[in-house]
Amino acid sequence: MDLIYTLNIIGTFVFAISGALTASEKKMDAFGSAVIALITALGGGTLRDMLIGSQPVGWMLDPNYLYVVLAALIFCYFFKIRIMKLTKTMFLFDTIGIGLFAVLGVQKTLAFGLSPAIAIMMGAVSAVFGGVLRDVLSNRVPLIFRKEIYATACLAGGALYFGLTQTNLSETWSIWIAVAVVMGIRFLAVKRGWGLPGIK
Amino acid sequence: MDLIYTLNIIGTFVFAISGALTASEKKMDAFGSAVIALITALGGGTLRDMLIGSQPVGWMLDPNYLYVVLAALIFCYFFKIRIMKLTKTMFLFDTIGIGLFAVLGVQKTLAFGLSPAIAIMMGAVSAVFGGVLRDVLSNRVPLIFRKEIYATACLAGGALYFGLTQTNLSETWSIWIAVAVVMGIRFLAVKRGWGLPGIK
Amino acid sequence: MDLIYTLNIIGTFVFAISGALTASEKKMDAFGSAVIALITALGGGTLRDMLIGSQPVGWMLDPNYLYVVLAALIFCYFFKIRIMKLTKTMFLFDTIGIGLFAVLGVQKTLAFGLSPAIAIMMGAVSAVFGGVLRDVLSNRVPLIFRKEIYATACLAGGALYFGLTQTNLSETWSIWIAVAVVMGIRFLAVKRGWGLPGIK
Repeated sequence: MDLIYTLNIIGTFVFAISGALTASEKKMDAFGSAVIALITALGGGTLRDMLIGSQPVGWMLDPNYLYVVLAALIFCYFFKIRIMKLTKTMFLFDTIGIGLFAVLGVQKTLAFGLSPAIAIMMGAVSAVFGGVLRDVLSNRVPLIFRKEIYATACLAGGALYFGLTQTNLSETWSIWIAVAVVMGIRFLAVKRGWGLPGIK
Repeated sequence: MDLIYTLNIIGTFVFAISGALTASEKKMDAFGSAVIALITALGGGTLRDMLIGSQPVGWMLDPNYLYVVLAALIFCYFFKIRIMKLTKTMFLFDTIGIGLFAVLGVQKTLAFGLSPAIAIMMGAVSAVFGGVLRDVLSNRVPLIFRKEIYATACLAGGALYFGLTQTNLSETWSIWIAVAVVMGIRFLAVKRGWGLPGIK
Repeated sequence: MDLIYTLNIIGTFVFAISGALTASEKKMDAFGSAVIALITALGGGTLRDMLIGSQPVGWMLDPNYLYVVLAALIFCYFFKIRIMKLTKTMFLFDTIGIGLFAVLGVQKTLAFGLSPAIAIMMGAVSAVFGGVLRDVLSNRVPLIFRKEIYATACLAGGALYFGLTQTNLSETWSIWIAVAVVMGIRFLAVKRGWGLPGIK
């Protein structure tokens, strides 16, 4: 699954940039930025691995994840101003990352022999928990609890992925279709201002 | 232990309602409410299981916990207004939940071969950590650090439960007595405005 | 390694005092203070152990850690006013604690067969995560993300310790030298107002 590994690394890279930009807005120093970038990029997979009992957690066995976060920080340091103007590009990459992590999280959890409902949930956890930690550590109500439906998109995409694995479709196609659906829902949600109804 | 399982499910249900109501106050959408409900209901047991090394964490092996949280959310959606008027009923159920989780947490930790002091502490963690996470994610100082002595009640009830297991009393009676003591302390504390002295 | 164990206990004691004083500033009651003290003192090692898969986490197998935190709380309760005037003494002990935890974290992670880069990072996690949790639970942006370079000092000291273990130097000397370097960097950073450059 070399393709998946590559995309996973890309997702890590983009999430790290998202964390570093948030840290920068909060006027944190270089170390704080590195920590927030690391947590944003790796936090989701870490929680998933601790919950399902995959320890040591995945990224600790592969130093490439740390190098990718480091690369993202260096990238941010040099290209900060341009990235700010590339908001749409960032949004694209962020959405790709969420789509991938949502599907890869389902895959890993199923491989640990857990049930589909739990696997789909762990996919969403992988995809969004890093962003939740980023927001909590920056001392604000996590974005995910206030608007957007992107976690819901993760659940839908994760469920679709599980459904596709039960068919004759190849693993690669199952992943791509599910990732595309997560991305599609998120794009439409932002474009059309979709939201879920509140309880109130 | 069918009785215990049933009560555990009830505790999960009531904590989920508590989380959903908090999310609603903070004007979160349906997804945010679901996450907060899930975390409030399952957070304590999750931390306990990760600390004692029971992985995958308990609720991941039994989908009923997810269904109960879902049921609580649906219940909240339809009966929101009436629940607000049922504050006292909610307080009763919440207290039952805390009492049960405090005692069940002790039981599970002892079953993992850890010492009584640690087990009593893990009981309190099971009972209160979900509420702490709920408050942190809602961006406020956790209630437990500001007033009430209910965590202390958990420790007292947990210690009592351990003491009773060393006697000839049946497991069922040990649990009921300890749960009743936790509930009793909490009721009295709220009714009489008890608090612990601050360090200052 | 009796010396190390002793120093570890001292580090726990001092971090517990740091947590209790923070809780006191926030006007928390005795229980809240105990929880914050516990989390500040044991939080770093707990996260490290959950990440590397050392479960149950270390302090759960040795009740002395709980007793030390309790002793710190009693100490705070009786000597609060004097400690406030001993800020410099506290800073000294806090720095000793950070230095020791940074190095001991590297040692334990290497013993689990993980790579040096990960081990150095886990050393910093052991040293600073308790303080991060303390700040998050007190509802403020963690100090570490706003100023000081002490986590960077941990990484430098951890890397130095790893380097020294590759030489003929004894374990004891390697530890002392690395701890001294962490402390030295932190002292100089505070004295001279060092900071790391922000990304902005």
